[in-house]
Amino acid sequence: MWKPDRQSKQPLFQQIADDLERRISYGEFPPGSLLPSERKLAEQLGVNRSTVIMAFAELRSLGIIESQIGSGTRVSKYKWGVTPKHTPNWHRYAEGGSFLPNVPFLRRIREALGQRPSLIDFASGELAANLSPIDEITTLMNENQYTAYLGYDNPQGYVPLRQTLVSYLRQYRGIQTTESSILITSGSQQSLYLITQCLLSPGDAVAIEDPSYCYSLPMFQSAGLQLFRLPVDCKGIRPDDIRSLYKKHRIKMVFINPNFQNPTGTVLDSERRIQLLNVASELGLPIVEDDPFSLTAYDGTPPLPLKSMDPIGSILYIGSFSKIAASGLRIGWMIAPHSVVERLADARQQMDFGLSVFPQQVAGQFLKSPFFDPHLERLRMQLLFKRDVLIEALQRELPGLVEFTVPQGGLHLWCKLVPEIHDGKLLEEAIRRGVVFVPGSVYGSDSGFVRFTFARPDTEEIVSGISKFAEALRSIIN
Amino acid sequence: MWKPDRQSKQPLFQQIADDLERRISYGEFPPGSLLPSERKLAEQLGVNRSTVIMAFAELRSLGIIESQIGSGTRVSKYKWGVTPKHTPNWHRYAEGGSFLPNVPFLRRIREALGQRPSLIDFASGELAANLSPIDEITTLMNENQYTAYLGYDNPQGYVPLRQTLVSYLRQYRGIQTTESSILITSGSQQSLYLITQCLLSPGDAVAIEDPSYCYSLPMFQSAGLQLFRLPVDCKGIRPDDIRSLYKKHRIKMVFINPNFQNPTGTVLDSERRIQLLNVASELGLPIVEDDPFSLTAYDGTPPLPLKSMDPIGSILYIGSFSKIAASGLRIGWMIAPHSVVERLADARQQMDFGLSVFPQQVAGQFLKSPFFDPHLERLRMQLLFKRDVLIEALQRELPGLVEFTVPQGGLHLWCKLVPEIHDGKLLEEAIRRGVVFVPGSVYGSDSGFVRFTFARPDTEEIVSGISKFAEALRSIIN
Ligand SMILES: Cc1ncc(COP(=O)(O)O)c(C=O)c1O
Ligand SMILES: Cc1ncc(COP(=O)(O)O)c(C=O)c1O
Repeated sequence: MWKPDRQSKQPLFQQIADDLERRISYGEFPPGSLLPSERKLAEQLGVNRSTVIMAFAELRSLGIIESQIGSGTRVSKYKWGVTPKHTPNWHRYAEGGSFLPNVPFLRRIREALGQRPSLIDFASGELAANLSPIDEITTLMNENQYTAYLGYDNPQGYVPLRQTLVSYLRQYRGIQTTESSILITSGSQQSLYLITQCLLSPGDAVAIEDPSYCYSLPMFQSAGLQLFRLPVDCKGIRPDDIRSLYKKHRIKMVFINPNFQNPTGTVLDSERRIQLLNVASELGLPIVEDDPFSLTAYDGTPPLPLKSMDPIGSILYIGSFSKIAASGLRIGWMIAPHSVVERLADARQQMDFGLSVFPQQVAGQFLKSPFFDPHLERLRMQLLFKRDVLIEALQRELPGLVEFTVPQGGLHLWCKLVPEIHDGKLLEEAIRRGVVFVPGSVYGSDSGFVRFTFARPDTEEIVSGISKFAEALRSIIN
Repeated sequence: MWKPDRQSKQPLFQQIADDLERRISYGEFPPGSLLPSERKLAEQLGVNRSTVIMAFAELRSLGIIESQIGSGTRVSKYKWGVTPKHTPNWHRYAEGGSFLPNVPFLRRIREALGQRPSLIDFASGELAANLSPIDEITTLMNENQYTAYLGYDNPQGYVPLRQTLVSYLRQYRGIQTTESSILITSGSQQSLYLITQCLLSPGDAVAIEDPSYCYSLPMFQSAGLQLFRLPVDCKGIRPDDIRSLYKKHRIKMVFINPNFQNPTGTVLDSERRIQLLNVASELGLPIVEDDPFSLTAYDGTPPLPLKSMDPIGSILYIGSFSKIAASGLRIGWMIAPHSVVERLADARQQMDFGLSVFPQQVAGQFLKSPFFDPHLERLRMQLLFKRDVLIEALQRELPGLVEFTVPQGGLHLWCKLVPEIHDGKLLEEAIRRGVVFVPGSVYGSDSGFVRFTFARPDTEEIVSGISKFAEALRSIIN
């Protein structure tokens, strides 16, 4: 006789419900017939009675069986005549699947923002609408024809955009490359996704910063990767940690965000950069350099990427249009050896058949237009201004209760809360008062931190948002 | 002592190369030191000497070891001074990863088209540039502002496009739905991808048509699904086959393309539609209905989808802008219970952070514009005309050598070759003569078929393409 599999990831009650459903559908228990009692079934299957009760509840919710007090559980005669009819158990399908859902805090934040769009949003890691170059892009779109071709795009991405990026990368990032080494992606997010799916296998060990944006992404776990931590101090990660992780766990890849790191704002120290490149070349270890924030450097001198000093090619470089211009275009890029670019482009065809041509055209036009430099200039000044408004508000509202290092670029402030608090409770109290932020634990092992994105709310919102936040914090420490 | 694992999917020589690399990096064999001989290592590891030779060759290509005739194999002292430096073995990374590469024939076709854009293309399943509504879309773009918002989009897709789709689906597809049940995707391709990744688990059994577009997609295998076949005859699939597959393999989902099926052009018979819906509801089995071609019905009366007669909600419906207007916008849609839509939208955030706003705006504007109906009318007439040009050319050039059912809609002709031929040889001969098509075996178990897409080449290309194809075919049957 069939028994549930205790090694399986599927809960016992579901396995039992599945088995019963199968036996019913095969006619072993015809419509109207009596099922064995819960007690008897539990004995036969070697499980607790409560497990069978849950399996019965599941089948009842699907309309497959009916229970009446005193007369046991029967196979339904069904509502719609002789033929049994049931809707697929969509709930179970939606719960299943190998790809993991988002982390609960982020789903909670999205839900709160969906229900109450007036919430002051320190959580979404993006620019305010008025920091995006809307007028400039409108002008460019009126001047240019964007519709000459509407067929499937080149799998590596639109050729003119790749050509523009070759100059852009040379001029702004000190990187020499060719258009055949560039893959256009739907933002850095898709670059990271393609790397985890196509260059790594389940069980592979990788190292990521702690804290790190990567911890907010179940994509690493969905790909079955083992994650190891590289603690970030005020100078970034310590390259020696990579060597020890390699020795112990044979890590296959390292993911870092060296310039104005999300969430800490840290810039990797220049000595450590050299050490890092040495470790990488010593071990033949690929480093993924995620570099979305550099051009926001408030003083106008962006730190150069590791990729600009990578003679032997250890670095996969990822850039994005999102944090310097507009996240809604979904344009990012990766620089990699051609064999890697080809592999990722080929796989991406399976996933979404490539990118839309329009936003690629628009992004390319903008990057090479005379609007780009003045836009960057304005962006930097406004971010700096908002950062200062945030810092002032925090110092005014929460003197002695918060600590932080002042970031010199990027969209975020990483803020330590001096009193010990419960992340989830603070978030709920804040939402109740009309403000959201991201609890630090989303980004790694440290709790007791908060990430404030100051790029999105306007200055008034920053001020009133921090005052609401302060109320929320005080309410739970008292 | 370590031994290679013969059960592993990784070749023995690579395991050995990996192990040696690790031992070298740990200092077991310092730079300049002598490695054991090939013969000795082969004995120790219990493998053939040729396997060790391959492992050494691999390490040599990475610059990790050096061999000199007569003096054995040594760990390199490295080219760049004392510290060993090596480039990551990108080739091995690109070969790895859990996501499978495209099927070889399709990669060959893409490569051929890349090298020689003048090839006559019966392979790419899309519309010719002049069948896309380029002028209409240009006009709409000039009339409308597309840049009011450039932030991250709603995870389910742009709200106004979803609203437009609610009317579109009612009016053109007989489907009643609401905007919260719609997910906008990067074409049908992304809908299929999200379903396989998020609603199914590795090991799950699913049923697909044979032949079917799905067989051309390694995404099903990449998701670890077991595929079972539903043979397609001139009336489509036989619903009873689903029942038997369910009994035998407990299939979890069925994928079909009932209207002008890719590649056969078949329309599922109306009696079988009812049976299919009955089987689905009897078994509580979800049916994925992929419906990109219906509106191309040459007689102007598109078959209605299964979804229009699905009272209990067994159907996940997928539509696309690609085959009726423009594939390059990458706009598709899925209709599903809200819990499913939410789950897929959440996962998609991880993969690419959602779609670009522009193409969604453009597609929405076009679908509700007065341009849409005249465009469809013109599209149908031109497709019908091209179909007839193709059929005439085939009958003239290859009388008695080809057989087909004349399709009443869609972009493709599914053509049986009467002589027995070798798929790959025919493709190479055709490429040599300047024409590409898709070998039938890409779509399932039948070889001896060819899929000709007649929507993309113009009429002159169709005529000369078939004459080249005929030469290629004759060259290999003689
Ligand atoms: C470090 C980092 N990488 C990648 C991303 C993804 O951004 P996008 O896909 O919009 O480029 C973000 C967004 O917050 C980020 O902070
Ligand atoms: C049956 C079918 N489904 C899905 C697709 C994917 O098309 P798209 O992603 O452009 O909508 C195709 C393309 O050939 C197809 O033929």
